[in-house]
Amino acid sequence: MQLPPVPAPDADARRAAVARYAELAVPAGALGRLAELGCWLAEVQGSCPPRPPARPRVVLVAADHGIAAAGVSAYPPGVTARQVRAARENTAPVAVLAPAAGASLRVVDVGIDHRGETDPAPDERYHVRAGSGRIDRADALTEQETERAVAVGRALADEEVDSGADLLVPAALGVGATTPASVLVAALTGAEPVAVVGRGSGIDDETWMRKAAAVRDALRRARPHIRDPLTLVRVAGGVDVAVLTGLLAQAAVRRTPVLLDGVVVGAAALVADRWAPGARRWWVVAQRSSEPAMELAVAHLDLVPLLDLQVRLGDGSAALAAVALLPMAARLLAETATAADSGIAPAAPAEV
Amino acid sequence: MQLPPVPAPDADARRAAVARYAELAVPAGALGRLAELGCWLAEVQGSCPPRPPARPRVVLVAADHGIAAAGVSAYPPGVTARQVRAARENTAPVAVLAPAAGASLRVVDVGIDHRGETDPAPDERYHVRAGSGRIDRADALTEQETERAVAVGRALADEEVDSGADLLVPAALGVGATTPASVLVAALTGAEPVAVVGRGSGIDDETWMRKAAAVRDALRRARPHIRDPLTLVRVAGGVDVAVLTGLLAQAAVRRTPVLLDGVVVGAAALVADRWAPGARRWWVVAQRSSEPAMELAVAHLDLVPLLDLQVRLGDGSAALAAVALLPMAARLLAETATAADSGIAPAAPAEV
Repeated sequence: MQLPPVPAPDADARRAAVARYAELAVPAGALGRLAELGCWLAEVQGSCPPRPPARPRVVLVAADHGIAAAGVSAYPPGVTARQVRAARENTAPVAVLAPAAGASLRVVDVGIDHRGETDPAPDERYHVRAGSGRIDRADALTEQETERAVAVGRALADEEVDSGADLLVPAALGVGATTPASVLVAALTGAEPVAVVGRGSGIDDETWMRKAAAVRDALRRARPHIRDPLTLVRVAGGVDVAVLTGLLAQAAVRRTPVLLDGVVVGAAALVADRWAPGARRWWVVAQRSSEPAMELAVAHLDLVPLLDLQVRLGDGSAALAAVALLPMAARLLAETATAADSGIAPAAPAEV
Repeated sequence: MQLPPVPAPDADARRAAVARYAELAVPAGALGRLAELGCWLAEVQGSCPPRPPARPRVVLVAADHGIAAAGVSAYPPGVTARQVRAARENTAPVAVLAPAAGASLRVVDVGIDHRGETDPAPDERYHVRAGSGRIDRADALTEQETERAVAVGRALADEEVDSGADLLVPAALGVGATTPASVLVAALTGAEPVAVVGRGSGIDDETWMRKAAAVRDALRRARPHIRDPLTLVRVAGGVDVAVLTGLLAQAAVRRTPVLLDGVVVGAAALVADRWAPGARRWWVVAQRSSEPAMELAVAHLDLVPLLDLQVRLGDGSAALAAVALLPMAARLLAETATAADSGIAPAAPAEV
């Protein structure tokens, strides 16, 4: 699959932002992370001062995972479909938070296994496969499904950007999803299984041991493919990770900033930055994660999380808290007085 | 001065919030700090689910400090008045951020020394004294001034609450203000001068040493009064700290939640919780501080900062980032589906 090269963010706009912060009537560095956010907004928007994002958009992709049958989650299969229903009825956390952050939400069923549920038929334009393969024993996807999932992700990015979205928050819903995410992160960072396996949906010690065994077995199948990111996703990922990989890569191609949140998105980000080098420069990580695999992924991408709200959902909820800070960062740079204009400046050293 | 007793927040509302979080369709504890914020809102509002604060209000008090003459700040005296002008013209960071957080701002000159500046005369209802005494050698305030400053602070709280404010963000502006704040924190926590002296407005090593000497000398004058919080403020504080002490105590008496930000507010909070025991239960600390005195004060109050944005302004800017998260916390508790209603629940252990 051919992807256009990822452009670099605008270095001139970044330089202008850094220079403007230095002129503001505040002590050097006193705006902390808000100044960093403002510089990032300037470079990804290509203008200084930056604008508050006008149309932040959460794209929540939902998929089931065959590995859930190995008992790796606190939740039974079937819950994914119910979570999607709650998101569409605005009673899932991410749907509750989106309007409070000035964002809108799109929920896309890319791979729910609807067997046994009386859901309406999924939209075939986006539904790639009903659940992915059990990755401790088999490939997650076929080659064709992988290509299709990545293409769906790219199409989602294009649709959103063409509709005016100027900030994307990719997110994932799916019982068992942190298991393939942990495998991918272990494969791409060289970590051992026990170093990546977290508590996911809130699992107990026995479930944790089953999850660690599943990660170990899947990792053995994955390791031969670490030089080929899309094959890695095919073997040890899932529909959601493949879609998110396509979405993240295409968003970078389309010069669109992204907030990362959750280990499934984090795993897709690692894959996407391999497949589309430089994509990471379009991203900010919303919060520290309690999932060790996400911490590894973030460190590997050389990014620094913005918040530490200890939200363990992965559905984009914590990213929405970060979305709420972006208008602040943009307005600070645009509206704060300069030292020269206001006369608010440090004393010259000789005067003290 | 007689203060009515501080009421306790509503324990029933808190219990109801904790119980409701436990019923939501999310893994136990997965809402992290947003859930803690929601429980706090419920108890301080006395209702569950809580409402998003309807009228968050920043009250920024500005005052000069005699100790600035000792060369403890990066900024020359005279800058306080200019900072106030910028705040009133909406070009100071706190004024830029307030509307982005849905908050409004009141700027009150309680003790600026206007000598040499062509400012309009300050409002005598709130202006207590033109700058406070040089605390390394003399008392900050007289007994009468201290009483008046505390009364001004209490009146400010009453005015705001009576006008409908349901969340207060006290903040301070004033060249040299971190020096008395550091002295008060050292006195009330038993810390040594070098353990409380930070970089304040961004001072160099030489200025830091002058500041440490000033703190040491003022602390020697302050220590005999550590059992009497208002005398401590009179001897080693300043107009701003005294006003903020009154404001914080009266806000608690009026059952009004407060977000704390900045070491001057932190020092006043330590004093206020001594003077008005239990006031701390009405407070949340907005962010970790780079000022060691603030870290000590927060630990002493047994509070845990919400954010770590590395904003070093003390003018309430970082608190406004926290204000933006409160509607999210409130809405999560009100609108998220329960596990029972949505069928999103962990598998029974036997099923796995």
